[in-house]
Amino acid sequence: MTATSELLRSHLAADATEFSGRHIGPTAETAGTMLEALGYASLTELVDAAVPAAIRQPGPLNLPEALTEAETLAALRDFAGKNQPRAQMIGQGFYDTHTPQVILRNVLQNPAWYTAYTPYQPEISQGRLEALLNFQTMVADLTGLDIANASLLDEASAVAEAILLMRRGNKKRATAKIVLDADIFPQTLAVVAGRADALGIEIQIVDIAAEGLPEGEICGLVLQQPADSGAVVDHRALIAEAKERGAMITIAADLLALTLITSPGEQGADIAVGSSQRFGVPLFFGGPHAAFMAVKSGLQRQLPGRLVGVSKDAEGRPGYRLALQTREQHIRREKATSNICTAQALLAVAASMYAVYHGPEGLTRIAERVHGHARMLATVLGKAGHELITESFFDTVQVRLESDAVAEQVIAAADEAGINLRRVSEDIVGISVDETTTAQDLVSVLQAFSVGDFGFVAGSRDPDGTGRRYGFVESLTRTSEFMTHEIFHQIRSETQMMRYLRRLSDRDLALDRTMIPLGSCTMKLNAATEMEAISWPEFAGIHPYAPAQQTTGWRELIADLESRLAEVTGYSAVSIQPNAGSQGEYAGLLAIRQYHLAQGDAARDICLIPASAHGTNASSAVLAGLQVVVVATAEDGTIDMTDLQSKIAAHPERIAAIMLTYPSTHGVYEAEVREVCSTVHATGGQVYIDGANLNALVGLAQPGEFGGDVSHLNLHKTFCIPHGGGGPGVGPVAVAEHLQPFLPSTSVGASWATGEHEGEGRDGAPVTSTPFGSAGVLPISWAYLAMMGSEGLTSATAHALLSANYIAERLKDHFPVLYTGENGLIAHECILDLRALSKASGITAEDVCKRLIDYGFHAPTLAFPVAGTLMVEPTESEDLAEIDRFIEAMIGVRGEIQDVIDQKLTLEQSPLRLAPHPAAVLAGDAWDRAYPREQAAFPVKNLLQDKYFPPVSRIDGAHGDRNLVCSCPPPEAFELEESTA
Amino acid sequence: MTATSELLRSHLAADATEFSGRHIGPTAETAGTMLEALGYASLTELVDAAVPAAIRQPGPLNLPEALTEAETLAALRDFAGKNQPRAQMIGQGFYDTHTPQVILRNVLQNPAWYTAYTPYQPEISQGRLEALLNFQTMVADLTGLDIANASLLDEASAVAEAILLMRRGNKKRATAKIVLDADIFPQTLAVVAGRADALGIEIQIVDIAAEGLPEGEICGLVLQQPADSGAVVDHRALIAEAKERGAMITIAADLLALTLITSPGEQGADIAVGSSQRFGVPLFFGGPHAAFMAVKSGLQRQLPGRLVGVSKDAEGRPGYRLALQTREQHIRREKATSNICTAQALLAVAASMYAVYHGPEGLTRIAERVHGHARMLATVLGKAGHELITESFFDTVQVRLESDAVAEQVIAAADEAGINLRRVSEDIVGISVDETTTAQDLVSVLQAFSVGDFGFVAGSRDPDGTGRRYGFVESLTRTSEFMTHEIFHQIRSETQMMRYLRRLSDRDLALDRTMIPLGSCTMKLNAATEMEAISWPEFAGIHPYAPAQQTTGWRELIADLESRLAEVTGYSAVSIQPNAGSQGEYAGLLAIRQYHLAQGDAARDICLIPASAHGTNASSAVLAGLQVVVVATAEDGTIDMTDLQSKIAAHPERIAAIMLTYPSTHGVYEAEVREVCSTVHATGGQVYIDGANLNALVGLAQPGEFGGDVSHLNLHKTFCIPHGGGGPGVGPVAVAEHLQPFLPSTSVGASWATGEHEGEGRDGAPVTSTPFGSAGVLPISWAYLAMMGSEGLTSATAHALLSANYIAERLKDHFPVLYTGENGLIAHECILDLRALSKASGITAEDVCKRLIDYGFHAPTLAFPVAGTLMVEPTESEDLAEIDRFIEAMIGVRGEIQDVIDQKLTLEQSPLRLAPHPAAVLAGDAWDRAYPREQAAFPVKNLLQDKYFPPVSRIDGAHGDRNLVCSCPPPEAFELEESTA
Repeated sequence: MTATSELLRSHLAADATEFSGRHIGPTAETAGTMLEALGYASLTELVDAAVPAAIRQPGPLNLPEALTEAETLAALRDFAGKNQPRAQMIGQGFYDTHTPQVILRNVLQNPAWYTAYTPYQPEISQGRLEALLNFQTMVADLTGLDIANASLLDEASAVAEAILLMRRGNKKRATAKIVLDADIFPQTLAVVAGRADALGIEIQIVDIAAEGLPEGEICGLVLQQPADSGAVVDHRALIAEAKERGAMITIAADLLALTLITSPGEQGADIAVGSSQRFGVPLFFGGPHAAFMAVKSGLQRQLPGRLVGVSKDAEGRPGYRLALQTREQHIRREKATSNICTAQALLAVAASMYAVYHGPEGLTRIAERVHGHARMLATVLGKAGHELITESFFDTVQVRLESDAVAEQVIAAADEAGINLRRVSEDIVGISVDETTTAQDLVSVLQAFSVGDFGFVAGSRDPDGTGRRYGFVESLTRTSEFMTHEIFHQIRSETQMMRYLRRLSDRDLALDRTMIPLGSCTMKLNAATEMEAISWPEFAGIHPYAPAQQTTGWRELIADLESRLAEVTGYSAVSIQPNAGSQGEYAGLLAIRQYHLAQGDAARDICLIPASAHGTNASSAVLAGLQVVVVATAEDGTIDMTDLQSKIAAHPERIAAIMLTYPSTHGVYEAEVREVCSTVHATGGQVYIDGANLNALVGLAQPGEFGGDVSHLNLHKTFCIPHGGGGPGVGPVAVAEHLQPFLPSTSVGASWATGEHEGEGRDGAPVTSTPFGSAGVLPISWAYLAMMGSEGLTSATAHALLSANYIAERLKDHFPVLYTGENGLIAHECILDLRALSKASGITAEDVCKRLIDYGFHAPTLAFPVAGTLMVEPTESEDLAEIDRFIEAMIGVRGEIQDVIDQKLTLEQSPLRLAPHPAAVLAGDAWDRAYPREQAAFPVKNLLQDKYFPPVSRIDGAHGDRNLVCSCPPPEAFELEESTA
Repeated sequence: MTATSELLRSHLAADATEFSGRHIGPTAETAGTMLEALGYASLTELVDAAVPAAIRQPGPLNLPEALTEAETLAALRDFAGKNQPRAQMIGQGFYDTHTPQVILRNVLQNPAWYTAYTPYQPEISQGRLEALLNFQTMVADLTGLDIANASLLDEASAVAEAILLMRRGNKKRATAKIVLDADIFPQTLAVVAGRADALGIEIQIVDIAAEGLPEGEICGLVLQQPADSGAVVDHRALIAEAKERGAMITIAADLLALTLITSPGEQGADIAVGSSQRFGVPLFFGGPHAAFMAVKSGLQRQLPGRLVGVSKDAEGRPGYRLALQTREQHIRREKATSNICTAQALLAVAASMYAVYHGPEGLTRIAERVHGHARMLATVLGKAGHELITESFFDTVQVRLESDAVAEQVIAAADEAGINLRRVSEDIVGISVDETTTAQDLVSVLQAFSVGDFGFVAGSRDPDGTGRRYGFVESLTRTSEFMTHEIFHQIRSETQMMRYLRRLSDRDLALDRTMIPLGSCTMKLNAATEMEAISWPEFAGIHPYAPAQQTTGWRELIADLESRLAEVTGYSAVSIQPNAGSQGEYAGLLAIRQYHLAQGDAARDICLIPASAHGTNASSAVLAGLQVVVVATAEDGTIDMTDLQSKIAAHPERIAAIMLTYPSTHGVYEAEVREVCSTVHATGGQVYIDGANLNALVGLAQPGEFGGDVSHLNLHKTFCIPHGGGGPGVGPVAVAEHLQPFLPSTSVGASWATGEHEGEGRDGAPVTSTPFGSAGVLPISWAYLAMMGSEGLTSATAHALLSANYIAERLKDHFPVLYTGENGLIAHECILDLRALSKASGITAEDVCKRLIDYGFHAPTLAFPVAGTLMVEPTESEDLAEIDRFIEAMIGVRGEIQDVIDQKLTLEQSPLRLAPHPAAVLAGDAWDRAYPREQAAFPVKNLLQDKYFPPVSRIDGAHGDRNLVCSCPPPEAFELEESTA
């Protein structure tokens, strides 16, 4: 039977290229056209000519046969079926929530939102910038602080960032110790410990309630509110004392609780951090969720991550853009103080929309309901004789049982009733109430504690008989207003929310409308089938610390994904824990550092980084405790081998690693990469290969094979996780066997007794709050790998090369291509050199970026890795017609530059300099420009019917930085003058 | 425990108004503002003043307590869990299919597509018109006929429509009999029989293969290909003979089969009909699916349903619009030859996109795979000694087993393996292969037939050893091309499809961007939670003829929905079978007619219809075999009682029914409705109350209580099923107890042996192909009712009244409100009378509609029920800000009319007459208009940032009707002149 069945299968199998044919833009026919333009007879020939033989892998990837889209959905349903949803009352920083369906459908399931890129080009990002500004306003208001950023990766790393910020902000005591209260989430303490260790920061964990502040000089104090135990404590006296002693204060806080509790700012904190997850973002088995950070005025230039601010456009109307970008790591490189690059934009948008939809009164109502439920539980449990850990709480009640065995019984009885409680320690059980908790859940919980008779408290407005308004210390009852801006008061109906989401997304350009030809960012298709599973409740509804036996499906999917990624990269093992590329870099460099220490090589503390590297590389190295030494770049863009030799020769015994990007950030395959690797290896150093450009390698070459000891990948680049308008990202770290023990531990946050999150021999410091980081989006990459298979992945890479080389070839007579590799070919992206044109015309690369908006395109990467250039990466997903449309636009722009060179118009009169052109200008009564309206609006004909109009003209970034406004401006700011232009 | 639990629940219950507060636009505060403008202190006061006490229901609706959104999703999951998905190989007109996820997500789950209205306003509908034109082109090409319409409701009713068309088209033999081959789907024969019976059409069902054509004059012949038995027969000789004898020919055909089989047109058919379901539209337990009809040139003016055609706009560029509208029933009323109003636009869009995505070569590949599988099955079963019903087939193989018992065993064994086969008769089992059939399914099917050894055919290219290319008569191998237009060749990657869908939807205005203030169409919120469940596989994947024990969830949901609708309307029973309002009307009038016949009242054949009625009323009456007598309308818009009396007095014994709309189409509550009802009852007639305006009654008054014997509802109006750009609709019929036996039978199409679809004492003729019509979208209405509850529904009605009266009040000084009822109030819509202004200025109501596009609005209802007027219905879902924005626009328009009256501009120079203004005109170099660009583009300020630009200027409908083009125009047609305006 099996033989027959097999025969049948081979006869009948659905086309294995079903999906790859949909993922890859060019068809066989159009690929032929492109190959012809390049002078190659086949893709194989092109690939052989472009990719150095020295690095090619010998055979195809050893991956399971490709599945069809339907088979993939079925396989995902199988994984999902192995997860067991429960009422998740574990808490510990993760709380179930009702994602408003209108937000789920129109943001998280809408490509207009999730395929958008980071809003570096503000004119085509006004919609998501407004949403992120709403997020900042909400966070600043709730925390009672002056300025908040546009999200961080997770709460634990946000606390670590706060500690770094306090050291920067408290210059006089920068090297003094950091004190953390012991009653902080264990995952936070674990992540902070690892970060502090790497940087040699002294931290001290103290039971402050029992012991007070420790002796000695203190740089910063970190508290949590509500605390890990659920306790809500008035910290004002403590904070005053700490400030007296010169310390800065960080409070990790719960946003929902802050609707009822006096804010961190009002209690005296300088910094507040936390997670916005419970504002409508699913548990996602731990992430992605948007963490936040808010600070007092004066600290804004120290803020890590992205910050949205208000500025004005060329007509003087308000417009949003990313503010104070010079703080950021890609500018500051080894002087950077944080390596945060990706944010959690999509999740911050969702959380902000949840706040917009509920408004302050709705959030307060939810908080009061949650708190009321917790208070009822506490009262009944207390009256039944149970020992409560605290009598002042918000949503979490912890109970000390008479014995370990009884605690185990309680947990088991709750499990039987479909509820997960938290096993805090041998004899302590925690219950966290959330928005989704039902009356039946409460009854079941009480029954699990063997409490049967509790009618007496029902309906009481003062259940604990204290006469207090809330079940926490009265001095902390919040009296200040929050979310007073009108955006939090306008939208209450679903229709309004649907339209607001549409209106904002219509202001933006995302992949659902146009190619986003960003070099190094690999903006490829995020297929609907890949996206489908992430909102299934069996994936989205799982708590990160749920017992392992409930999460078999997740664990199998993750293990399979890690193993496929290891095969693709040629490494021994992969950890998907890092929730951004920067975190992957940090984890990988930390593994190298730990490896050297374990080898007794404590002196190895230098990380060699080529001058062309992305700025994040250097900052990650610093955070991993390494010193950066820059290696020069040769004329042709490759690593300067002589300089490398001399840098090594200077301190051979101190070389910890070299950090390469391959293909290089110049977009070429460097033939000598094996030589570079062996040179570093010979001196005892490790080789870190940044996987940013992995889209040029998959199926053709494996960094683990051609010299790397460790790489990080970007699942949001090569493996189809959407950019989400600036996150989520996932940055798995892949290592050779000798580094495997230093991968991040997956026991982070594990509940006390179960210890399920076995590290599989991984003992490195955890880098995020949860064992599997941004688990929630991993089905996307799994589905991509499953549907492409070895052949599909390799074909994708080949097509990425084809399209990039086709663009380089078609544009080279218009814009010089800066670097090329073997046979004059490039890898998957090309750098167009505008410097000569800029010199001749005054037109800058930025002008070109802005003018491309008028043509309906997102800009290429500007000024990276070389100032005055544009880097273009079409990816394999763009079809020839779209690529030709881009080429047509670039040639059109070139002609407009020529007009300036030829002095037909002055620089200031040029449509390039005056770009982009919003509708209000184009259809305005006044038009005194030196070029006709139609040239401005419709420089190519196909725009006449389907045209994107930016909502603003060029944004003045410098003005905004001089006049920093990072919360929602009053509506009057948008009142428009009668006439424009 | 229960008592305690109850107490807890009352203490903790989630807010029961959670959803209704989201569904209803005005908040308590803004409703207060609106009430104040109207001079009422409360909603209750307003309702009491507006709604005549005589019709008010005594108490609240007896409905279950409202659920929250989360509870509703949980309840829907419970229903879904009671359905059992299977590999559905029943066939019989319904075949499983892979909905491309990119189409599912971006069409069926995207409000930009599903909330759109019917494209009566072509300028804001170019996107969906293009998609529907693609549908027409695809159908015309595949059927080999000249012109296809933009979809019909279902295959069975399409055959019925084809029969009516043949009678119109074959004038000489219009009264001769219609011959139908016996080998047609049983559901088709059942629906046709009912229709023919009502109209007195003679039909004869003949086993043509055995008996040939019958004697006597034949008006039309209906064949099916592939036939019900799966047989694929070359009909050319038969068709030639029938034509010789003067008959017209209809072939019901399968679109997928037509990629391999000679088309109906090439075989000589005049008409082809069928279903496009298997082009990517889920089974949906029977519907909604887009049926189609294509005809030979010369019959286009006889086509029922909607027809999209190409015309040109004011600048001479091509633009799409609905063609030949004068054919339609709302114009032709009692002279209409079809009552089809709703189409299945959304499903036709999905099917057309499936064709665009696969292209002709992809469809052929799918057809060949399906056919190859069927051929393999036939070969193996034949070699194993089974008797096949036919040896010429496409996808369906029927086998005669040796006994009834063996047939039962085969069915049971397949069921055991997770497969549904069809029990065709005692001893015949049918197997239908589809796109989703897997190798394992085939193996399981063969095992169910006890065939174990079949390796020998696997991989063979000629499995049956006949040497034929396909497993059907060679003479039918298709040789003609199809889908040659470039749209079917351009889009192969998912990225392209995603962008095409976005580009088209961006050309349109739907509810996700603006209020659609259409009188009588109740364009209210289609909430995301309501929409969520319809694509769950446990609902969407169920075959309409699956055994009842597999569909418990569906049946429970439907029964509960029917019972809630009965409660809302005050009737005894509801049938949700009718898949459009028109079908509900037909079913209801048929029930009346059947009731009279059963009473021996055969003479009762007159249906009284007020002059103000919707045209469909009259045409439905005709189709139900009734004669229409029009009752005059009095000056104040109410029924003229004197005329009613006299019309009754003329033929008291012939009065079958009166057909009222309540509130009337004039948008007012007529106080004398009880009197009208009792007058008709007194003469022995029945009262039909059209539920089109039920949104003004729910919770306040029940038509079943104040005089109705039967009503139809529109779930796509009052009960939140989205309009889908022109369908799906659902038109349940609700009846008093005495009419219950005449409701449509739900045994339609039931498989032979099981007879599961018990009619619950319902013996009326079925009106659609499947027992529960458009079952797939019923979870939407169920969820709406579940979430609103009695209080929410009543509040919605009250807010609908409030908003309509507020608009009437605010606009009455600018545009007279034509009719008002008690206390000068209207119901849920108002008619703005433009006739005097038109007379003074020449500006027409249509000009106002077009100008509103420039303000970002969809037009109100134009010229219905009174020419020269606009009817506005805001519904309860619009918030005050949006309503005020509309009022501001209308006042702006009024000022522009005044400019013409005041002779500041001429009529021809007016922005009203030259509206709408596309971007190409507004930003064009030439501007010679008498008003400034900014007035044209941004007549109100909020448009400056977020502005919808129509892609075309005003479409010239008459030009298109004179030069009828109803398939995709060549791309050159869209080449645009250098300069515009």
